[in-house]
Amino acid sequence: MDGQALQSKPNLPTGRVDRVARTREAIVASALALATAGQVAPIVRDIAQMAGVSARTVFQHFADTAELYVAVLGRVLAALVGEAPELAASGPVEERVAALINKCADRYEQLRPMWTFVETLQRRSPEAADMVSQVYSANSANLAQAFAPELGALPPESRQRALTALALAIAPESWVVLRQRLGLSVDQARDELGFVVKSVFATAVARR
Amino acid sequence: MDGQALQSKPNLPTGRVDRVARTREAIVASALALATAGQVAPIVRDIAQMAGVSARTVFQHFADTAELYVAVLGRVLAALVGEAPELAASGPVEERVAALINKCADRYEQLRPMWTFVETLQRRSPEAADMVSQVYSANSANLAQAFAPELGALPPESRQRALTALALAIAPESWVVLRQRLGLSVDQARDELGFVVKSVFATAVARR
Repeated sequence: MDGQALQSKPNLPTGRVDRVARTREAIVASALALATAGQVAPIVRDIAQMAGVSARTVFQHFADTAELYVAVLGRVLAALVGEAPELAASGPVEERVAALINKCADRYEQLRPMWTFVETLQRRSPEAADMVSQVYSANSANLAQAFAPELGALPPESRQRALTALALAIAPESWVVLRQRLGLSVDQARDELGFVVKSVFATAVARR
Repeated sequence: MDGQALQSKPNLPTGRVDRVARTREAIVASALALATAGQVAPIVRDIAQMAGVSARTVFQHFADTAELYVAVLGRVLAALVGEAPELAASGPVEERVAALINKCADRYEQLRPMWTFVETLQRRSPEAADMVSQVYSANSANLAQAFAPELGALPPESRQRALTALALAIAPESWVVLRQRLGLSVDQARDELGFVVKSVFATAVARR
């Protein structure tokens, strides 16, 4: 993203650099606010107005809306995949399941209003598609780590099958389905995911 | 949809009515082809060109793109929810699971390229949102019918939990996650859904 490069241009005076960074930040924050409000493709006029700049200024910072949207997506996904997998692999399995699901529930509940924005963008931009795919790899890494004792005890084929079923259960789409399509409350959705995860483990172990 | 009304206008000569219906059909088919090719919002210029008509003609049949897209969605979803739930509630449970999953797999595999089109449209149009929600109600009705013996044997709370878990497993989004996000082949995705469905039943019954 070219806008980012502006911030480190060595021959710009410091005040100018700060102003550039602040303006860029205001533009990204405004576009993010509109995406959070459910807009699938926030328009530049609205973004500029909310950021208190002209449309021309927006295009000084971003080559096109795709580049701006990718910056917004980066902000959105940072919270989802930015942190290292910090789930402990010890303690009762019920506690680890609950910890994982609570973590997903909190994050996905924030992500939910802008999920269609994310979906649409990743069809339009390969860079966005790469970023979104990191959510799934991070989830799989988290699962493999948090349930290393359980998964490690399974033969390879069952392990892969269980891991994929768990990855499906904790995909952002599953949260959207439970909350939006099937009309569950946050607590019900959390319970339901807990039930699915426990079912998968119970069956994988029974088949071992 | 006003375009539909044109076909039954009693004071139009039959040849005119046929031509109107044929043109409308060509427009919807062209928009559907573009959505199937992965376009999230097919533009009128392309639709008109493919249908061999002018953009002006497109807007004689549809008030705006939303109305045209809703007609396309109707065509897409007809195959998904149009047929009555025909799954038998008898026979070994493994066979019923396989029949259900094969049915979903075939349909969702066709729907998959245009899933983002469907997602985006239903945010834009309440009519589209209603149509999409019928997929989930039809799925729940199918599940309740095909697994009546198993679900009926569970106490009400477990029954609802199992039914929701099954509805999540056979939601179109789950198919998209397995195929696109987690990179499974059609056969692997089918196996994986079978595993999830069996796990849910095994656990629901064990808890009874």
